[in-house]
Amino acid sequence: MSTLDDLLAKQAIGEIVLRYCRGIDRLDLDLVRSAYHPDGIDHHTGFDGTIEEYLVWVASALHRLGGTMHLVGNQLIELHGDDLAVAETYGTAVHWGDPPDDPHRNFTSGFRYLDRMERRSGRWAIAERWAVREWTRSDAGLALTKEGAGPSGRRDRTDPLYHALGRR
Amino acid sequence: MSTLDDLLAKQAIGEIVLRYCRGIDRLDLDLVRSAYHPDGIDHHTGFDGTIEEYLVWVASALHRLGGTMHLVGNQLIELHGDDLAVAETYGTAVHWGDPPDDPHRNFTSGFRYLDRMERRSGRWAIAERWAVREWTRSDAGLALTKEGAGPSGRRDRTDPLYHALGRR
Amino acid sequence: MSTLDDLLAKQAIGEIVLRYCRGIDRLDLDLVRSAYHPDGIDHHTGFDGTIEEYLVWVASALHRLGGTMHLVGNQLIELHGDDLAVAETYGTAVHWGDPPDDPHRNFTSGFRYLDRMERRSGRWAIAERWAVREWTRSDAGLALTKEGAGPSGRRDRTDPLYHALGRR
Repeated sequence: MSTLDDLLAKQAIGEIVLRYCRGIDRLDLDLVRSAYHPDGIDHHTGFDGTIEEYLVWVASALHRLGGTMHLVGNQLIELHGDDLAVAETYGTAVHWGDPPDDPHRNFTSGFRYLDRMERRSGRWAIAERWAVREWTRSDAGLALTKEGAGPSGRRDRTDPLYHALGRR
Repeated sequence: MSTLDDLLAKQAIGEIVLRYCRGIDRLDLDLVRSAYHPDGIDHHTGFDGTIEEYLVWVASALHRLGGTMHLVGNQLIELHGDDLAVAETYGTAVHWGDPPDDPHRNFTSGFRYLDRMERRSGRWAIAERWAVREWTRSDAGLALTKEGAGPSGRRDRTDPLYHALGRR
Repeated sequence: MSTLDDLLAKQAIGEIVLRYCRGIDRLDLDLVRSAYHPDGIDHHTGFDGTIEEYLVWVASALHRLGGTMHLVGNQLIELHGDDLAVAETYGTAVHWGDPPDDPHRNFTSGFRYLDRMERRSGRWAIAERWAVREWTRSDAGLALTKEGAGPSGRRDRTDPLYHALGRR
């Protein structure tokens, strides 16, 4: 039987992945870092290393792009005792950039994050991540321009998120 | 430390966004309205105004289309005291319509809903929303016809949802 | 007012759908079966029947493909008493296979699962499912090859999931 403690642990673990996505998409590398333990390990397509090494690598990749959106769905979290969990998270990452017909800057990928999460001193964070690539699809030449003005995403503190949070 | 009350608040807030999506996709404008407080404000691409003004505007946009699907993922909810929250929700909206090669009726957009949620008289609802557009991609000419018969989505009470809910 | 019991029920019900998706995508038919009661009924595009009949049908469809990814988002769960619930789950299913320009093996569909869930002897599972097709879009010819080595998805126990779970 699940308990309130299980729900609280799953909520905390799920939110780590969501904050990771926010950090990547808003180019807030401190927020990305906070999702991992200091000795955390990351395995990505084209990368294996520590979280500090990962931050350097991913920042370089992100700066080549105009923007990204990491939408995650399914979060299936298995708790193993009080301080260990394995979380599988499904997601799609949309990448865009100039020129809009360049498939290396305009593509969507499907992935699963497999995270070994550990609770240390009461704080859940990623101890080891495998970012499993499932598929990659070109979006080159498919972008449409927006009709009308309105809120649009930014990769810095001018994003409407910070206004909504009251700390623009 | 999070508590049961926090989980209950986050569950209630998350479901508001899901009911909003159901209302839009099933053309149930009363359900859309119920996601907002009566003096709620909405900011969309091409629109700024009250919820009642928004309902008129969005109904017109929806009726030009054959159907929509607003799939949301990441819901990151920050509680500020007992009666205020800021919720960021990631989503993609698929739009379709005739003719199938018209990119203004066949497109997918990526967005984030930024919602200032307030609890008044015990009821959580949207006080102010910023619908942040991230990207828009043409689906013109990509639609495939279904193989075989089976349940398909409708925008009225003949949708299988109402059968499942026992109130078709 | 919602209670802890409601949250626990919704968590259990939501995870059934996630395990179903894992079962389909990893070709683990026992896991798919476990999402249903033994007399469960499934309605899909091109299929109506019992869970055992469904497993035969879906296995055949899955084996024609190179892989699938069933990402689900919105899970709106209505509890009706202690032992009955209706869950609506939004999702997109990406399908891929050879040759990569074949639209019958390379397509994405949008769907909603409508599940009548029942708790019997303390176990929640699907009593009846309607898999509602919303849209289908060709991905033929859009696949990109991955840059660099790294974790990639498999449909058997060599998938990184089983490594992360410690039972490869």
